[in-house]
Amino acid sequence: MPNKLAVGILGATGIVGQRFIQMLEHHPWFEVSWLAASDRSESRPYAEAARWRLKTAIPPAVARMTVSPAKPEGAPKIIFAALDAAIARKLEPQFAAAGCAVVSNSSALRMQADVPLVIPEVNADHIRLIETQSWRRTSGGFAVTNPNCSAIGLVLALAPLHKRFGLETVMAVTMQAVSGAGYPGVASLDILGNVIPYIANEEEKMEEETQKLLGTLNGNGVIPATFAMSAQCNRVAVEDGHTESVSIRLKKKAEPEEIIAAWNDFRAEPQHLRLPSAPEQPVMYLNAADRPQPRFDVDSGGGMTTTVGRLRRCNVLDWKFTVLSHNTIRGAAGAALLNAELLKAKGYLG
Amino acid sequence: MPNKLAVGILGATGIVGQRFIQMLEHHPWFEVSWLAASDRSESRPYAEAARWRLKTAIPPAVARMTVSPAKPEGAPKIIFAALDAAIARKLEPQFAAAGCAVVSNSSALRMQADVPLVIPEVNADHIRLIETQSWRRTSGGFAVTNPNCSAIGLVLALAPLHKRFGLETVMAVTMQAVSGAGYPGVASLDILGNVIPYIANEEEKMEEETQKLLGTLNGNGVIPATFAMSAQCNRVAVEDGHTESVSIRLKKKAEPEEIIAAWNDFRAEPQHLRLPSAPEQPVMYLNAADRPQPRFDVDSGGGMTTTVGRLRRCNVLDWKFTVLSHNTIRGAAGAALLNAELLKAKGYLG
Amino acid sequence: MPNKLAVGILGATGIVGQRFIQMLEHHPWFEVSWLAASDRSESRPYAEAARWRLKTAIPPAVARMTVSPAKPEGAPKIIFAALDAAIARKLEPQFAAAGCAVVSNSSALRMQADVPLVIPEVNADHIRLIETQSWRRTSGGFAVTNPNCSAIGLVLALAPLHKRFGLETVMAVTMQAVSGAGYPGVASLDILGNVIPYIANEEEKMEEETQKLLGTLNGNGVIPATFAMSAQCNRVAVEDGHTESVSIRLKKKAEPEEIIAAWNDFRAEPQHLRLPSAPEQPVMYLNAADRPQPRFDVDSGGGMTTTVGRLRRCNVLDWKFTVLSHNTIRGAAGAALLNAELLKAKGYLG
Amino acid sequence: MPNKLAVGILGATGIVGQRFIQMLEHHPWFEVSWLAASDRSESRPYAEAARWRLKTAIPPAVARMTVSPAKPEGAPKIIFAALDAAIARKLEPQFAAAGCAVVSNSSALRMQADVPLVIPEVNADHIRLIETQSWRRTSGGFAVTNPNCSAIGLVLALAPLHKRFGLETVMAVTMQAVSGAGYPGVASLDILGNVIPYIANEEEKMEEETQKLLGTLNGNGVIPATFAMSAQCNRVAVEDGHTESVSIRLKKKAEPEEIIAAWNDFRAEPQHLRLPSAPEQPVMYLNAADRPQPRFDVDSGGGMTTTVGRLRRCNVLDWKFTVLSHNTIRGAAGAALLNAELLKAKGYLG
Repeated sequence: MPNKLAVGILGATGIVGQRFIQMLEHHPWFEVSWLAASDRSESRPYAEAARWRLKTAIPPAVARMTVSPAKPEGAPKIIFAALDAAIARKLEPQFAAAGCAVVSNSSALRMQADVPLVIPEVNADHIRLIETQSWRRTSGGFAVTNPNCSAIGLVLALAPLHKRFGLETVMAVTMQAVSGAGYPGVASLDILGNVIPYIANEEEKMEEETQKLLGTLNGNGVIPATFAMSAQCNRVAVEDGHTESVSIRLKKKAEPEEIIAAWNDFRAEPQHLRLPSAPEQPVMYLNAADRPQPRFDVDSGGGMTTTVGRLRRCNVLDWKFTVLSHNTIRGAAGAALLNAELLKAKGYLG
Repeated sequence: MPNKLAVGILGATGIVGQRFIQMLEHHPWFEVSWLAASDRSESRPYAEAARWRLKTAIPPAVARMTVSPAKPEGAPKIIFAALDAAIARKLEPQFAAAGCAVVSNSSALRMQADVPLVIPEVNADHIRLIETQSWRRTSGGFAVTNPNCSAIGLVLALAPLHKRFGLETVMAVTMQAVSGAGYPGVASLDILGNVIPYIANEEEKMEEETQKLLGTLNGNGVIPATFAMSAQCNRVAVEDGHTESVSIRLKKKAEPEEIIAAWNDFRAEPQHLRLPSAPEQPVMYLNAADRPQPRFDVDSGGGMTTTVGRLRRCNVLDWKFTVLSHNTIRGAAGAALLNAELLKAKGYLG
Repeated sequence: MPNKLAVGILGATGIVGQRFIQMLEHHPWFEVSWLAASDRSESRPYAEAARWRLKTAIPPAVARMTVSPAKPEGAPKIIFAALDAAIARKLEPQFAAAGCAVVSNSSALRMQADVPLVIPEVNADHIRLIETQSWRRTSGGFAVTNPNCSAIGLVLALAPLHKRFGLETVMAVTMQAVSGAGYPGVASLDILGNVIPYIANEEEKMEEETQKLLGTLNGNGVIPATFAMSAQCNRVAVEDGHTESVSIRLKKKAEPEEIIAAWNDFRAEPQHLRLPSAPEQPVMYLNAADRPQPRFDVDSGGGMTTTVGRLRRCNVLDWKFTVLSHNTIRGAAGAALLNAELLKAKGYLG
Repeated sequence: MPNKLAVGILGATGIVGQRFIQMLEHHPWFEVSWLAASDRSESRPYAEAARWRLKTAIPPAVARMTVSPAKPEGAPKIIFAALDAAIARKLEPQFAAAGCAVVSNSSALRMQADVPLVIPEVNADHIRLIETQSWRRTSGGFAVTNPNCSAIGLVLALAPLHKRFGLETVMAVTMQAVSGAGYPGVASLDILGNVIPYIANEEEKMEEETQKLLGTLNGNGVIPATFAMSAQCNRVAVEDGHTESVSIRLKKKAEPEEIIAAWNDFRAEPQHLRLPSAPEQPVMYLNAADRPQPRFDVDSGGGMTTTVGRLRRCNVLDWKFTVLSHNTIRGAAGAALLNAELLKAKGYLG
């Protein structure tokens, strides 16, 4: 492993931090060499500091690693960040200013004009915004973000349609898994046998991030896509996998077979570049009348494939369908990891 | 109880049949005197034939009652019907032809031109369609129906707005409880930790029933409301209570306070007539940011009140909000019972 | 209400504190006049400080009440305590020393030699231990406790058998509801679709409390019952209601009908005194082969009745059966409330 | 694949039938060539006849296979049977009489004196009972069975202790997953947020099968083990994985480290023979205080390893601990498959 790049994880003990560790265990390009978390975890062996919630075991090398203070000193040059927004807002700029490539899953910087918000299959070209960041000019550091877990599955399903037919209107209602709220996150007393029709700030993020992701790069910034977009977000008693009931209006007339083909045939830069975490098929249409379902489909493509089903005409807009995406893999750790792989392939990671 | 009206229940052993029995236990006007179910249950004591799934005990008088064959002979003149659609299509006309008032929860006759589909708070006047039924002229019998469990909560929330501001467009995404599928209904292996984005024929029913309910009576029939309407239906791991994420466009401009007042102030004939099963407030707006929720709100008004919350502007249509309604009370047995009470108050039950 | 006794609640914002408020809303003897909770809640209106998790609404008078500091100054003379053990260990003695009757649900003082651990139906005579407390002699204050939520249902089922037939051996395996862990308590990610075979200190509490409760008062203390007792505790995805699989060996030979009669006929001081929260029947045997179940039976007797079922011979000990008890009503707030009612009836509350 | 043995599956559309198909997909020795199910499925392509409930896809070759009538004519010589007991009682002897090796997961023949009930790690020698079967002498056919899903995990945990220390008493309380009841099996309305303290005939099966499995082969039959054994069986809202709270008394004194070593060091014939489905470690002790849990541990050893945890002293017997086992893999399809592999290794499959 001498030629693997050392990476660090900020927020390593949380659910997304754990997914980073899991997904990096056998990664061909990156190797975890540094972990940081809150003060409470500092200086403790990772296996003791983290309440590990995944089904695979903690990689032994990581289990023994000591949790470092969340400071750039001593940290490697590539940092995966899985911090709460409030903390990220403070720490991520510090790491970027110290010369790190900050590949963040947090919402803190996503909507900042000079920070790329990227899904490699959708808007890989936006990474060029890095060049406009002041950190880049001073220390060489920069920050790249991926979208919210509820936006990413939707945008993967929308992107091929936007490209071929043009989106005019998008309405999405989500049924989101509890792992999206981290750990301990949602109390069992709140969600057992229940639906919670509210997730703080989630609808706002889904709406604005979708438009930034499908926007166009123009000199120094992104011009958001102009379609109308409305989201409603609900929490349900599912462990992993955000399901969304979506309705859209398209600019161009489309037949159902064309729409399904647009999804199934969709390939983009991560597939062409054969990035290690890129799924063979980013979007997959399922023909069964009652799919996708979290139980059966959430792990499609190792959790990196968005599954879509139930395409049918909508009496109000043009089409309606169901989207499912793994919220802590494609919607969080896997999203950031694919961003890092794209950055590496494009020469941004030295 | 000498002056109570004898009523029978068709499909008495199912989940909705059980709710009928529960709601009729202390009813001031009606008294259960006859129960029928499938051949398998015939001639057995009810307590043995039914797999009782409610939290209150079987009323002792009903427990001992023998299950009758599902034939009009020997049945009382008022029949609550909780049958599967396929069976209802055959049996309900037989009972109406035999002179019975068939108050049905089944979908079989709902969309038939001369059969009233009624929510007493919404379109009580539609019961006049009874007079156009051929059964009425021959035997005196007739049939009245209530809507699907997913439509009724929605329509109760829409009706006050339609009246004051005019509906132009309605989109609804449901998260429906398992009790809506009857018993045994949804297998636990299908729904534990899962979302099923499909319920057979449910979206079609919601769409057409909503438009018939909010339509206008015109001579011999109902002219459906003309707003555009689109529904998406999902099953979630909730016992009782259908939650719906709704977006609407109104014809007239409305302020949020006016919309909330339209809901909270809504009263109609069942309230004016003080029908025994009518909730004091048919629609109640909850101010908390994260309500309504099945766990807390499903039993509002004894399960007969529809709760609404989260009113906020929609970027695509005008407004979005969340609706919750008890699917086996307001959405089934309570709906039919309120219909029967309306019929009684209007002199249709002799 | 001028003749009601003013009571205060320590730990008023937690799940058990909320149950106290709910059960005291229409209480004939007691009236909530004072609420205290952690510093974070102090000086805020209760409705704002508490994250109310019950299905009934906060009583309006309580909703407006300001949360007081958790200090004896200004507190009424009767205090219901629903604190974490660590805090209770510090605060409960302060209140008792200040002259309060502390009726506690906490484990802090339960096993202290001079503190009565009481289930009024089981060992009402143990309240005489109060007289041995030093607080009693100085300020007039005292402390009385009720058992752990997992012990109380079991002991109610055991007491009538112990009395008639003598217990020699008891083995119990619990399947405990999440509300037993308070709020937020068990994380949804930990329990959805899962069983957790561990609850810290729970088995130890069940074992020692059962023996103290069924012990005999002897001068200055309780001599624990001498039967062998072993418990295993599991957490399951149930909202309310601890289910227990129990096996016992009896000293005297008993026929099944005698055992069932011992349960169904069991009445004790709370029933004779007609204490307001006493259930008519403290223990009820259910004949159905598959009961008791939390879904159907947890609210028996307003949550104060322990239900038992499935009595059958055990190949190892003599008998096995299933016990169900509501863990936050009979197992917590209702337990303390019944203790307070007993104290009042016995003249300990002035 | 010319040298793979053709196998058939009786009851191929059920949950266990599906597991057989899944586990046989890449099997080095066996190949599915024939599928049978109920009349309803006959002559239909498997993918259409089965309601596939597993997360991996139906193997394409199987998906296209036509479901055959459940008759020996045309069936291969090795039959995996996953039938309901009532049907198995009729069909399994027909297949054995026709010369088939019937490797059954059904309870029908398990307790028949001349039918081996086998867990290859525990009592591989019992397969010699085959020679006493009349089918064997006439057609060459025979039947071998594996135990109930609740017995197999327990017996794997008990066997190493019985061997080293001798069992005197065993008490087990189960918390069983819904997949153990097949599909559709347990209704969601019955189990969501609930515990059902009853599974028909399950306790009897656990008790008698455990004693036959740990019994000794003696000439023409098995002398059951003589330790006392008592089981209580509950259903919980878990998808896969039976958890059991167990107490035991041993004949010889044992230290905890010796018991744990007995589990962790346990290896038997399947491991020595390197049978393809044999887990490296049949029993694994987990040190964490709160394990095993279905969420994390059910798939240990590909679902073939029984995990054990929480060993501690019992006040009534000697030791108590928790056992977890995958009920449709180790407890059903994997159990039968391992039996078939043992039979093959021993020369019984030609």
